[in-house]
Amino acid sequence: MILSALLTSVAINLGLCFLFITLYSILRKQPGNITVYSSRLVAEGKVKEGGEFNLERLLPTAGWVRKAWEPSEEEFLSNSGLDAFIFMRIFIFSLKVFMVGGIIGMFVLLPINYLGSQLKDESDFQHKSLDIFTISNVNNGSNRLWIHFCAAYVFTGVVCYLLYNEYQYISSKRIAYFYSSKPQPHQFTILVRGIPVPRGSTCDDAVERFFQEYHPTTYLLHSVVRRSSKLQNLITDADKLYKRLTHLKSKNDAPQRHKRDGLLGLFGPKVDILDHYERRLGSIEDNVRMEQSSVAAKEVPAAFVSFKTRFGAAIALHIQEGINPTEWVTEQAPEPHDVYWPLFTVSFIRRWISKLVVFVACTSLTVLFLIPVAIVQGLTHLDQLETWFPFLKGILRLSVVSQVVTGYLPSLILQLFLSFIPPIMVMLSSLQGYISWSQIQKSACTKVLLFTIWNIFFANVLSGSALYRVNVFLEPKEIPRVLAEAVPSQASFFIAYVVTTGWTNIASELFQLTKLISNFISRIFGSNSDDNFEAPSVPYHSEIPRIRLFALLGVTYFILAPLILPFLLVYFCLGYIIYRNQLLKVYLPKYETEGGYWPTVHNSTIFSLVLMHVIAIGIFGLKKLPLASGLTIPLPVLTLLFNEYCQKRFFPLFKDYPAECLIKKDRADQNEHNMPEFYDKLANSYNDPALMPIKYSERSDSHTSPLLHGFEA
Amino acid sequence: MILSALLTSVAINLGLCFLFITLYSILRKQPGNITVYSSRLVAEGKVKEGGEFNLERLLPTAGWVRKAWEPSEEEFLSNSGLDAFIFMRIFIFSLKVFMVGGIIGMFVLLPINYLGSQLKDESDFQHKSLDIFTISNVNNGSNRLWIHFCAAYVFTGVVCYLLYNEYQYISSKRIAYFYSSKPQPHQFTILVRGIPVPRGSTCDDAVERFFQEYHPTTYLLHSVVRRSSKLQNLITDADKLYKRLTHLKSKNDAPQRHKRDGLLGLFGPKVDILDHYERRLGSIEDNVRMEQSSVAAKEVPAAFVSFKTRFGAAIALHIQEGINPTEWVTEQAPEPHDVYWPLFTVSFIRRWISKLVVFVACTSLTVLFLIPVAIVQGLTHLDQLETWFPFLKGILRLSVVSQVVTGYLPSLILQLFLSFIPPIMVMLSSLQGYISWSQIQKSACTKVLLFTIWNIFFANVLSGSALYRVNVFLEPKEIPRVLAEAVPSQASFFIAYVVTTGWTNIASELFQLTKLISNFISRIFGSNSDDNFEAPSVPYHSEIPRIRLFALLGVTYFILAPLILPFLLVYFCLGYIIYRNQLLKVYLPKYETEGGYWPTVHNSTIFSLVLMHVIAIGIFGLKKLPLASGLTIPLPVLTLLFNEYCQKRFFPLFKDYPAECLIKKDRADQNEHNMPEFYDKLANSYNDPALMPIKYSERSDSHTSPLLHGFEA
Repeated sequence: MILSALLTSVAINLGLCFLFITLYSILRKQPGNITVYSSRLVAEGKVKEGGEFNLERLLPTAGWVRKAWEPSEEEFLSNSGLDAFIFMRIFIFSLKVFMVGGIIGMFVLLPINYLGSQLKDESDFQHKSLDIFTISNVNNGSNRLWIHFCAAYVFTGVVCYLLYNEYQYISSKRIAYFYSSKPQPHQFTILVRGIPVPRGSTCDDAVERFFQEYHPTTYLLHSVVRRSSKLQNLITDADKLYKRLTHLKSKNDAPQRHKRDGLLGLFGPKVDILDHYERRLGSIEDNVRMEQSSVAAKEVPAAFVSFKTRFGAAIALHIQEGINPTEWVTEQAPEPHDVYWPLFTVSFIRRWISKLVVFVACTSLTVLFLIPVAIVQGLTHLDQLETWFPFLKGILRLSVVSQVVTGYLPSLILQLFLSFIPPIMVMLSSLQGYISWSQIQKSACTKVLLFTIWNIFFANVLSGSALYRVNVFLEPKEIPRVLAEAVPSQASFFIAYVVTTGWTNIASELFQLTKLISNFISRIFGSNSDDNFEAPSVPYHSEIPRIRLFALLGVTYFILAPLILPFLLVYFCLGYIIYRNQLLKVYLPKYETEGGYWPTVHNSTIFSLVLMHVIAIGIFGLKKLPLASGLTIPLPVLTLLFNEYCQKRFFPLFKDYPAECLIKKDRADQNEHNMPEFYDKLANSYNDPALMPIKYSERSDSHTSPLLHGFEA
Repeated sequence: MILSALLTSVAINLGLCFLFITLYSILRKQPGNITVYSSRLVAEGKVKEGGEFNLERLLPTAGWVRKAWEPSEEEFLSNSGLDAFIFMRIFIFSLKVFMVGGIIGMFVLLPINYLGSQLKDESDFQHKSLDIFTISNVNNGSNRLWIHFCAAYVFTGVVCYLLYNEYQYISSKRIAYFYSSKPQPHQFTILVRGIPVPRGSTCDDAVERFFQEYHPTTYLLHSVVRRSSKLQNLITDADKLYKRLTHLKSKNDAPQRHKRDGLLGLFGPKVDILDHYERRLGSIEDNVRMEQSSVAAKEVPAAFVSFKTRFGAAIALHIQEGINPTEWVTEQAPEPHDVYWPLFTVSFIRRWISKLVVFVACTSLTVLFLIPVAIVQGLTHLDQLETWFPFLKGILRLSVVSQVVTGYLPSLILQLFLSFIPPIMVMLSSLQGYISWSQIQKSACTKVLLFTIWNIFFANVLSGSALYRVNVFLEPKEIPRVLAEAVPSQASFFIAYVVTTGWTNIASELFQLTKLISNFISRIFGSNSDDNFEAPSVPYHSEIPRIRLFALLGVTYFILAPLILPFLLVYFCLGYIIYRNQLLKVYLPKYETEGGYWPTVHNSTIFSLVLMHVIAIGIFGLKKLPLASGLTIPLPVLTLLFNEYCQKRFFPLFKDYPAECLIKKDRADQNEHNMPEFYDKLANSYNDPALMPIKYSERSDSHTSPLLHGFEA
């Protein structure tokens, strides 16, 4: 890529971003789009649709930027929860890192690279290749490479220092968040799996007897999990029917209420469909009640056990209960509305096997993903298309069309395939035996992160046959050399990637094109009902990996091609303000992992650093400076030791709360809160929603479905 | 090696073993050797020296075999403790494995190997190379190799089944042992390190306040650790002097009691040395008392904290105490006399760094060990010796001498170097920050095991330059091929190794040559005093690795050269009866890890299996049967999965006791034992022995040193 092409691309993409943002600032003020751009506020009842028309509504304004900027960290934390807070800390942390990196890179490394003469680029400035700004342009064996060497050490030191501070800051926030929380059911509850039920007894009895025996002073109550998948299907049906019914009722549209009862509504006697639906709903309700009473007997050997204090729950959680470690397996309970009921795989062995299967599936998906993509991309060659769709022949022969098809279609297909990955990873994680949505999402986040790093970074760097790529990693000695040859040559590709994909992603996050269109369509066809409006929750499992990929690019290319850094700074600045806006207005936090994503972010940063070091070792070798190459070897070792220390120093705090906190909080509760009342509430928290009494038909008139919102109160 | 040579070697070594055993059965009956061959019984006061002379004392008898065989498993367990019991289970387990392996190997694989014609050995039976009994003799591509393939699967299945049963049996024994134990201080105590001492306060106060605050119902008492290394030196001096004094007193040999007080006892005025020693002892005692009072102020931020119940201690142990995970670090306390006081490295960072340093030291020692050995062996070439010691020239020119020197000296040097390894590993482990002798020994056991496998097995298999050896492991793909080429060719070496080193080791373990000689010398020169006689404890850290190496050889060569198996069976049979004898009569268990060595044994067996599989994959490839090679790949995967399951199913039981056991045992105690009395005893259990009041000089007349035996009561 030449310099002028990059500048053109930057101009186009800046223009696009500006356009998106301008459109956003107009569209967000239209009452019809309120559920798209302020969905959280709508769900919380803070904003109502409608409002009179005025001219201001059509003018682009930047007021939203101020509003997103204004809240202090504390306000933001109390407003959006700890997870959202940490999500924003990722941007702040990345900005700090690349600010330092940018200064070193642009004012020290870039001039040195440019002054080299290895590439002998004789063209004028505008047509110079971007490669002359990379380390490839520094002369072989030149002593100037020692500056790159020092930069690697300094940058690593700075990043580690920032990482340490950030980990410390976030763990203190996590403890403070815990202290400030009200008593919540999941803090007092553990999930026990693999309950050995003696013959002739029930699981209910076994749990009661065990905990009365071994935790007599702290044990409070328990609720056994039941197999309720059939019931859940019935309830989903009832729910759908109920919604259709209320929709019909609200319309009060007499002519539409009659329909023929028979094949496709065409034959048979005419009936009042309102009446018909109500009768069907009634019969489903009877079924549900029957099933509910029979489900009571379908016990699964798992139970939620609640204790009188948090410390009591922690004791039962941390000390192996039974002699057989595969029985009485304990686990911290998730928040009640976060429990993932459908796949309550319980036996130890089955969970273990499904974990293995998921691991294999996930690894093969990650490693082999590009093969089907390449095959499908191959099928879109022009001649192939012409044989399939002969009528397109004329159009395809036009040079503009052919350029678009060959240039754009493969990348479109890749994007299409990529967009399926986060849901697939969520599905795989859900098969793994996690008991809560938040754990599933967290595990999917790691999977998507590994997938992204492999398929975007490594696949582009190590282009060639898939088999060749895997082979490199079977010969550890060769890795630095192969990477050092391949990575710098892709510098201009990744600079362009940041400018195009990165910037556009952020801007379209603000603009929410798909939601805008679906909202528009549903408004036209009127199928949208406000009753079951739900604000979306933050898709951490797709967003965090994307952001971390850009950070990885920045760290990896820091000494190779520092030109990438200013573009990344723009990305993180834009991202900071836009995500802050979205988290305040659009996304509603559904469950709280209390900072569970930070260790993933930390680890991915360490990985980027080590990758950078490995490439540096290779580069100094290729550039005929073996001494620098050798002296770089301690750097990854020191970084990994630093990581090891951080894991020991901070990670335990992200798994469990220490005794000190738990006991302090327990004592504070006794004074501040009405605990007996809370214990009463606790008793019903962990009942399967499918087992709650339902009441739809004419006897009920509650406005919202009791199923969806019962637990969020 | 040819068949007749092997048979000669077997005959010689059988003869040697027989000689050793006969000599043992005579020598053990001589009263003078009672401290060598029945040291445990002497230490326990069950046997006294002396007894009249009769002819039977000079006749070899096999009565000791019957006595060693007689005790049932239960008797043995209660007599020698769980660790010794598990040590014997290693032999039983190995016997079972190689019984099955031997039957398959000798009756199925060996005939198939012999019937092959790949090696074209035309010599008569006696002069046939041992190689025709190995897999190398099976024709390339022969379908008979499928029998080897099946044997690998069957053998792996059998070993895994036996491993599972053994793990289950031993963990049940461990639980039973716990239930049958009396209340012991270490069950109620944890060690807390990294205590944050606020300014102006003492560690004593900080511990008291913390545990009163957070464990008010279960906390009993604590004792802070103090820095006492200077004191310990003083006490060692005092101890030596005291021993010399009692020895002198007991002799009552007036002429010897006067000595000149001055340089080398030659100049200066004559003094009564008894008097002189007593005055010196008195002054050291004063120093000790002064130091003891000053040491009280030298607190180390670590303390032994005792609780009222075992469950109370477990709670404090398992739940992170403070907000900073590097403070209030808890650990199960060892038995009081097992505490390793000298190196109480306390700061988290220092312990962590010393762990790293030890890891590096241990790895380099293991990997590079053979280089100095080879260099020293090189120096012993005849011409080198001749230049150094010209007067030996005549002798060295004799062919017998030169043969012995060149053939025997290198192996002697290797053995000499090897004998230093267990003590070095113990030293390295003790630097690692372990708090008890038993942990140090356990960690040294793993280190020696890895060392042995690398330097005996791999070094012999992959002969060549050291650098080349390391290189193979950097190219994982090549490992099966390289091993498959190298391992079978060393079969005859390892068969000879089992017969020579293995059998001799076991027999000399019975004979205890070095101890016999030192006992003989000390009896002649009379420097031995019965006062401080101590029975040795089992050197698990050198014995277990040696035994596991032979098991590794057996498993690895099972399909390659089944001829090794009968010799191994002899080894394990001999070992079973001899070690049983030694554990009953010679070794006194000093501390109990309660089965802590079994996981090491289990893991080493799994490692041998996987190594066997990797070699099989390579062998089938070399033998031009790629299908069998491919179909063997699932075998190591399945074995590792099996191991993973075992780790989950049994390993937790070897780390900590479950709540069920702890609470049951606590309740039983309340009924069975006088707990207030036990608590009183507990109060003084974890005081540093160096801080105990001492009393040597004429005021004291206790027979045994108060230091050495104070804690074993």
